[in-house]
Amino acid sequence: MRLDVAYDGTDFHGWQRQPEQRTVQGVIEAGLREALGEPVTLAGAGRTDAGCHARGQVATFTTGSRLPAAALVPVLHRRLPGDVRVRGAADVPAGFHARRSARARRYAYRLLREDDVLQSRFAWHPPRGFDADRLARATRAVEGEHDFSLFHASGSSPVDSRCRVFRASWRAWEMGVQLDIVADHFLYHMVRGIVGTALVLQRENHPEAAMRERIAAGERSLAGPTAPARGLCLEQVFYPVEGA
Amino acid sequence: MRLDVAYDGTDFHGWQRQPEQRTVQGVIEAGLREALGEPVTLAGAGRTDAGCHARGQVATFTTGSRLPAAALVPVLHRRLPGDVRVRGAADVPAGFHARRSARARRYAYRLLREDDVLQSRFAWHPPRGFDADRLARATRAVEGEHDFSLFHASGSSPVDSRCRVFRASWRAWEMGVQLDIVADHFLYHMVRGIVGTALVLQRENHPEAAMRERIAAGERSLAGPTAPARGLCLEQVFYPVEGA
Repeated sequence: MRLDVAYDGTDFHGWQRQPEQRTVQGVIEAGLREALGEPVTLAGAGRTDAGCHARGQVATFTTGSRLPAAALVPVLHRRLPGDVRVRGAADVPAGFHARRSARARRYAYRLLREDDVLQSRFAWHPPRGFDADRLARATRAVEGEHDFSLFHASGSSPVDSRCRVFRASWRAWEMGVQLDIVADHFLYHMVRGIVGTALVLQRENHPEAAMRERIAAGERSLAGPTAPARGLCLEQVFYPVEGA
Repeated sequence: MRLDVAYDGTDFHGWQRQPEQRTVQGVIEAGLREALGEPVTLAGAGRTDAGCHARGQVATFTTGSRLPAAALVPVLHRRLPGDVRVRGAADVPAGFHARRSARARRYAYRLLREDDVLQSRFAWHPPRGFDADRLARATRAVEGEHDFSLFHASGSSPVDSRCRVFRASWRAWEMGVQLDIVADHFLYHMVRGIVGTALVLQRENHPEAAMRERIAAGERSLAGPTAPARGLCLEQVFYPVEGA
């Protein structure tokens, strides 16, 4: 079965279940166990870090329960805390897997022009500010297929560091700017690394060329500081068949 | 001294100090006591309810301390939790009082088109939805000087129920609509009562006339359900002299 999930990640230690920690996967699995009367294991499309949010996380699980998908949502909701919402549940074909079947993910990262106590859970105010136009120029260089070892956090598990970035563009929102970035997959901390590095490179004469050079060099030490988790939100996961 | 204060009211039992409760006034007074080395009592311009937010709350206090206003903010900030921010401090003329000197207040109330876990601390999704145009027509009727006994919560202390509403208009925001309302003063629960009543009256043939009639009748039983606190934010307080 497929679940579409949204959460305020502030009070979670990320998506992935960990012993003794409050995680989104852990909380939903506990709710499902009560709702279905059997233990289940969720596969999430994106493993968001501690403090990151989601509007469009997708998770799949297999169950022997005969509870129809439509009936599951209200039953599950009563067992979930207010900072996790299940937006929908649907039966999916055998073999459909939230992570392995995904073809692309869209993340958003929000920056604040000035600090704001009502937005500070979901957006970040960079202390040295930003220039929206120069930020966009630095970020444009990540579009296309590249080896993103530049952003490969040390200590994280080895993965395919070649990613295809379909789009990386900034747009204005009420209190600042938002990066919308779509790629086939992302490395651990990659979006936050792109934002942090673009914030450094916006001060260069040629932000786009500077980003391109650093990606080509691929040295982690050339990346800027990783932007804080709280500005990041997993907005959407794309699958080959609509509705699957 | 004057403080300009912003807070996420979600985890507070309102502004006003109460024994055994976490309140904004209580938390700031405790911080000031440490920062100044003496107990002080704050006067707040608006006594926001439990769960209501502020971007532009103003509070005044008198102190024998010689700490300059500019030096107070960083010292105080280190003693405040993350959900309260002091945006500025300034010396003010003797006799200036945050509440008594105020000439008008501006509140915002945010509605969500659809439920959203990232916005649900700061906006409300009315279960039956809304029609922005009809909502605006119902709300227009509160502009001007009226006796607002219609919204006078039973059990609240008697006050002057005549208020002068300078503006009550809706505008679009990213995920819904926002009421901006400015008045010389507000009754307890008045903005939330206006929103709740407008949501009922939007379904009448003549929302504006219906609101006008109910205000004229002034019977609390004719008001709609009070909208939840979480959508409400004290945005600004106006004083006769700029900067005072």
